[in-house]
Amino acid sequence: MLERRTPIRVNEAIISVMKYAKVGGMENVSLNDAHGRFLAEDLQADHDIPSFNRSPYDGFAIRSEDTKMASRAAPVTLEVVGEIGAGSVFQEEVTSGQAVRIMTGAQIPAGCDAVVMLELARTYSHHNRRMVDINRAYQEGDNISFKGEETTKGTVLVKKGTYINPGVVALLATFGYSEVPVSIKPKIGVISTGSELLHVDEPLQPGKIRNSNTFMILSQLERAGAEGVYFGQFADDIEVCYQQVKKALTEVDFLITTGGVSVGDYDYLPDIYQKMNAQVLFNKIGMRPGSVTTVAEKDGKLLFGLSGNPSACYVGFELFTRPVIRTYLSHQQPFLKRITGYLGTDFKKPNPFTRFIRATVSFENGRVFAIPAGLDKSSVVSSLADANALIELPGGSRGYEKEMEVVIHLLEDQDGCARLEEKE
Amino acid sequence: MLERRTPIRVNEAIISVMKYAKVGGMENVSLNDAHGRFLAEDLQADHDIPSFNRSPYDGFAIRSEDTKMASRAAPVTLEVVGEIGAGSVFQEEVTSGQAVRIMTGAQIPAGCDAVVMLELARTYSHHNRRMVDINRAYQEGDNISFKGEETTKGTVLVKKGTYINPGVVALLATFGYSEVPVSIKPKIGVISTGSELLHVDEPLQPGKIRNSNTFMILSQLERAGAEGVYFGQFADDIEVCYQQVKKALTEVDFLITTGGVSVGDYDYLPDIYQKMNAQVLFNKIGMRPGSVTTVAEKDGKLLFGLSGNPSACYVGFELFTRPVIRTYLSHQQPFLKRITGYLGTDFKKPNPFTRFIRATVSFENGRVFAIPAGLDKSSVVSSLADANALIELPGGSRGYEKEMEVVIHLLEDQDGCARLEEKE
Repeated sequence: MLERRTPIRVNEAIISVMKYAKVGGMENVSLNDAHGRFLAEDLQADHDIPSFNRSPYDGFAIRSEDTKMASRAAPVTLEVVGEIGAGSVFQEEVTSGQAVRIMTGAQIPAGCDAVVMLELARTYSHHNRRMVDINRAYQEGDNISFKGEETTKGTVLVKKGTYINPGVVALLATFGYSEVPVSIKPKIGVISTGSELLHVDEPLQPGKIRNSNTFMILSQLERAGAEGVYFGQFADDIEVCYQQVKKALTEVDFLITTGGVSVGDYDYLPDIYQKMNAQVLFNKIGMRPGSVTTVAEKDGKLLFGLSGNPSACYVGFELFTRPVIRTYLSHQQPFLKRITGYLGTDFKKPNPFTRFIRATVSFENGRVFAIPAGLDKSSVVSSLADANALIELPGGSRGYEKEMEVVIHLLEDQDGCARLEEKE
Repeated sequence: MLERRTPIRVNEAIISVMKYAKVGGMENVSLNDAHGRFLAEDLQADHDIPSFNRSPYDGFAIRSEDTKMASRAAPVTLEVVGEIGAGSVFQEEVTSGQAVRIMTGAQIPAGCDAVVMLELARTYSHHNRRMVDINRAYQEGDNISFKGEETTKGTVLVKKGTYINPGVVALLATFGYSEVPVSIKPKIGVISTGSELLHVDEPLQPGKIRNSNTFMILSQLERAGAEGVYFGQFADDIEVCYQQVKKALTEVDFLITTGGVSVGDYDYLPDIYQKMNAQVLFNKIGMRPGSVTTVAEKDGKLLFGLSGNPSACYVGFELFTRPVIRTYLSHQQPFLKRITGYLGTDFKKPNPFTRFIRATVSFENGRVFAIPAGLDKSSVVSSLADANALIELPGGSRGYEKEMEVVIHLLEDQDGCARLEEKE
């Protein structure tokens, strides 16, 4: 007797998975290793920027009142009484008629309130004294970067959960984070099933294919920010499989299996979930590919039963596993970034189910297009290579035409969406 | 006497750098470590996909001619003579009146030429024989994935130089690449200059700032695909600096210095280039920020003299160093991906120079916008954190208004552009 499964809607399925998503812990890593991780705490300014009034240019620090009467016809002459390299501090107070040679980034000396750019000043020697001619009037504050102008101490500059890109690294360095609090990567186990699977280094055999899903998923885990742990392939014996799953689950935060979730005679997972008393959240989704994607929960840990079909496996991971990973990393926008764009080709054949079509995003005159990556049979591995997006086509009785507006999910983006229904 | 420098156009500067770009070597890494690297050879199919005629569904393999007369009213009954799990091969020839239970992905047995989906077949026992009723006619080839249908042996599936994403990893696994030929990462030295710089773990001091450029550049190097080697900070003595640069250059493929390229009295780099007989390709560019960006060449090795200003340093790296890195990695589109989009804000003040403004790309109803990331003073570190793009505003006498079309360079993209002038 075939089991009857009732499909649920994609977003319902995601919501039911997200009920078991949890935020993980934090650890400190050296600033050198922070790129590509996720901040586990808000990044705060530990000082004003600039932390002192400074010169944005090479030039001369002056007292603006000295230049009140200066003009091209009648320049004012000041004596250069010293010079300040970036990083050094001028020790005396500058008085009327004096100027100080100042380098970019150096602190404005006491008494000065403006800077004349080097290229606008004429310098010369006079009786062994160094002089500078200024040929226009300056106002108080001209060419000075003021203390706190860019940011003030205590400001939160980057929010907890943010992906650490080179700009964030620069801020971390500026504010003294030699050690960076980052989110611990969730540890996610991977077990593959399927007696047709050969290992990547085995020669091809009749009726068999090489196991590509495992490596693909390990790579998707890395892209999402998790640590993948491969537990090998399922044994043929259901009792041994059961022990494998039980043991693996004790060592990881979440567990992914690939294959074995259909209703076929060789699909062990449904029996294993039952045997281990796991709560099956759903085992059928109204979507293509990946309708057999199954997610179960045992003692708060999620078991992702992804399809053995490469495309379904890929899509199932991105829709269901990725947001759980991003949540674990404290990321505030765990879902794939959704944007509106234009379909790059016709999809005239209607389909009752929501479809997720691997696609390549391109840009044309300020508009976003998504073009299906290769022939879209769910078993076509090759089309995955070019894909940087998924086109979502709602199910229904109508087909879709080129240039129609569609929802596009971006796969290589680090930004994401906070909510399921919202579009940016 | 101040040195007079003649600015050159941005693209001219890039072209003169690219004359010294070179393609690096290759190495083999385990498939587990291939994600995020660049392919050093074309990826070829080592077999047809599928490599045999296979079933895309769970169901029954049949001889279509047996079903010629089948209808809902008068189903045809076949005897189920065996079953084939995925990965196994049915050893006998199926003859008239017979069917074989077949699993998804399994090889079609000899004699059969169509598959009936499991849910469309009614099975039952009759005198201890297993029977199946088929209630419509099937054609030869129905529900069969044919050998070579998706790809044929020898096809180049992914080009040399491609960034290895999870989809490429799946292909590599499918075609038996347990070891993957990847491009060796260029080794790029980083030396920072500036007596105002404190190390990240030093407490703040009057007149000084923490060195953020070094960590930022190391992180940009990682994003671009290179290996950064930090050689520490310049000494105060020019002879010692000279020795530092000379020695560092022997240990790396390219060298980056940050700061010290202006015409100020403390800017050693120009003298060092001269002393080491390096050919200065340019030392002034008609762009903001980063006009002092200097690139020199010594015995075919490039020395990137980036500005000490964080934004200028950042932009200089992305425009000049990144394409050299991507070329080294055999990537065929070494330049930042350029797209057309709409300005998210006014830039009414005209500027004679080409400006590169750090920005965040967003999408609205199928259109691409770029919004400047924070206040755009070239010294503002904080705006770098949000930036995932650079807006390019050509210099001239006019300002720019919100919604105007502009060129946007994408920073987090792995795809790039093949040529400098082309837009996608």
